[in-house]
Amino acid sequence: MIQQELTDDLQLKWGRIQQAMKKMNADACLLSVDVNLYYTTGRIFSGYFYLETEGKPWFFVKRPNGLSNDQIEYIRKPEQIAEIFATRGMKMPEKLLLEADELSYNDYTRLQSIFNPKETGNATTLMRSLREIKTPWEIEQFRISAEKHARTYSEITDCFRPGMTDLEFQFEIEKRMRQNGSIGIFRAFGANMDIFMGSILAGENAEAPSPFDFALGGNGMDASCPLGANGTVLKDGTAIMVDMAGNYTSYMTDMTRVFAVGKLTEEAYRAHQTALTIQSEITNAARPGVVCSELYNIAARIAEKEGLAGNFMGTKQQAKFVGHGIGIQINELPVLTPRSREELQPDMVFALEPKFVIPGVGAVGIENSFLMTDSGVEKLTIFEEEIIQLY
Amino acid sequence: MIQQELTDDLQLKWGRIQQAMKKMNADACLLSVDVNLYYTTGRIFSGYFYLETEGKPWFFVKRPNGLSNDQIEYIRKPEQIAEIFATRGMKMPEKLLLEADELSYNDYTRLQSIFNPKETGNATTLMRSLREIKTPWEIEQFRISAEKHARTYSEITDCFRPGMTDLEFQFEIEKRMRQNGSIGIFRAFGANMDIFMGSILAGENAEAPSPFDFALGGNGMDASCPLGANGTVLKDGTAIMVDMAGNYTSYMTDMTRVFAVGKLTEEAYRAHQTALTIQSEITNAARPGVVCSELYNIAARIAEKEGLAGNFMGTKQQAKFVGHGIGIQINELPVLTPRSREELQPDMVFALEPKFVIPGVGAVGIENSFLMTDSGVEKLTIFEEEIIQLY
Repeated sequence: MIQQELTDDLQLKWGRIQQAMKKMNADACLLSVDVNLYYTTGRIFSGYFYLETEGKPWFFVKRPNGLSNDQIEYIRKPEQIAEIFATRGMKMPEKLLLEADELSYNDYTRLQSIFNPKETGNATTLMRSLREIKTPWEIEQFRISAEKHARTYSEITDCFRPGMTDLEFQFEIEKRMRQNGSIGIFRAFGANMDIFMGSILAGENAEAPSPFDFALGGNGMDASCPLGANGTVLKDGTAIMVDMAGNYTSYMTDMTRVFAVGKLTEEAYRAHQTALTIQSEITNAARPGVVCSELYNIAARIAEKEGLAGNFMGTKQQAKFVGHGIGIQINELPVLTPRSREELQPDMVFALEPKFVIPGVGAVGIENSFLMTDSGVEKLTIFEEEIIQLY
Repeated sequence: MIQQELTDDLQLKWGRIQQAMKKMNADACLLSVDVNLYYTTGRIFSGYFYLETEGKPWFFVKRPNGLSNDQIEYIRKPEQIAEIFATRGMKMPEKLLLEADELSYNDYTRLQSIFNPKETGNATTLMRSLREIKTPWEIEQFRISAEKHARTYSEITDCFRPGMTDLEFQFEIEKRMRQNGSIGIFRAFGANMDIFMGSILAGENAEAPSPFDFALGGNGMDASCPLGANGTVLKDGTAIMVDMAGNYTSYMTDMTRVFAVGKLTEEAYRAHQTALTIQSEITNAARPGVVCSELYNIAARIAEKEGLAGNFMGTKQQAKFVGHGIGIQINELPVLTPRSREELQPDMVFALEPKFVIPGVGAVGIENSFLMTDSGVEKLTIFEEEIIQLY
């Protein structure tokens, strides 16, 4: 619907969906949540994307008006899709895939009664699985995000002034992000995963447990958004973990660096080196075919050996993963957990984030975004990895 | 769960939910989406709020850990709620309300099979209807947001530099917002309603139709977030409509002002005055018992009379409302549409936004947030309403 390059990319994605549907004996999928519309059409609209196992997709659009394409039909409500099918002599699908983990119960059952298929399947599961393997165009988007992400991080030391709070520091960084092209929107999969522009954790706030399924927590500035910076004064001896969004294209990179106000404890520096060791051991081990749990176990084993198991991925509440797929949403597949049996495959893009929380100091560690290649991993987010001294 | 004042507020809300459930012959409701959890508990967590028609609520919490209260039970998965009911000898509800417009199909059917009620009802409809009438504590939150919202708007002229784009202008305003206490998160009801920090529309971009059900559109900076500023240069003769978020507490005010670069066309100034007239006619007419469609019709009639019907609430795509309830989400009830039969009631809080799009110039008009009182409306967002000259 936009430039040629994007159309080629869309055709590649449509083909992958069709191939997967054939394997599942599904006749068609109907998609309407923002991330799946963007993935399959290159834009967000209010309406539906409909694809059968053969042929071109149909776009049933409510808004915006003015789109034109011979596969677009304007509708006011989804019931009209059935009328269009009848008019055009199109066959209703016997097995239809709907976004069962994303559509509301009422929207799902409404679509079910319109199409009345013999069988339904879960389009959420299908799309999350397909979106795991990135296309060349998507990989290029990550590269653009990664470069701008690193550029913003190179400006972070300029954002610091002694005596400021974590929030004041964050506001300066947010502005640099926007000036470097951040789109602002931060998409996550799952309910109640609200986050604004990323997370900065300093001092004791790094220990605060969060309601969310992100790596670390923080109290946030308000009970309605309990994550990240909370007004902590950035005093001497504080580690500041900066994990701000890489949303410079619609494909987000994920990247964390640690900044120090004055001198940190020896334990903090040692834990940071341990995180770097974990990163290097995991990236050495990562190859197509390696099972994700093995990568998690490398991290857990090193943390244990260094006596840092109680600090690994939190203290009062510990996240049970050390990495996760990234894409249009920040928490795509695969997830590097103790039990994941999923194997790494070429063209997966994932973030690896071994982190330690040191009571009284803050959080230390590293996060980078990696592309799986045929032989190993390529680091996308290139920037200084030692703890960066603010003054 | 936090301070005394909030507990009183929560008890008031619980009582209202219980009263409404009795009327519906419902036995209990189970809530878990962010806005309903915040409304009923004063915080966001991962888990469930359960309330029967009598007695105190139960909190079934997955994360964060460390919360303590004799009504809190920690769970890993919702199936454990049934086990807790059995252990405690609690009766399973015969009619259970679930968030049918917000929970995913899979989450909803999972809860349904755990509770296996004879009947289910829609907790989304109930909660949106109850949330429409604000409590004293909520009204106080709007007052705080309104004051900070106006303070940010008073700094907008300082954000402008000749030659800048709408996006550069917006980044400056966003930073002022954050410094004045903006929480950042912008919550809307419904699918695919992604918006980042509000909207700025200048020049031709004000005509761009949006996929969203907001008042106006704009192309946005990326196809993955097609709303608002798009890089338009703010040249002489441009109207800039600033409709940035009032998210300074978890209760959002809504407020729009227009800024002019150089001199606008006569038609633009005239349309702006028409919007002010609409605002004043509607606020004069608004009293408890007045039907919302009557307010919309006042606006439509004036726009028609002034020959501006084709510019009212857009040109290429026109929004069919002139106001909407506000709260934890920006699009709460009531909605001022041509067909709404809903009556105004005391303690509703709504935004009124008569706007006109003038091709080649931009958008003009006004938006303020109002509290319904026993006798009329009180304007919450107090700030200059004429078009503000930038230089």
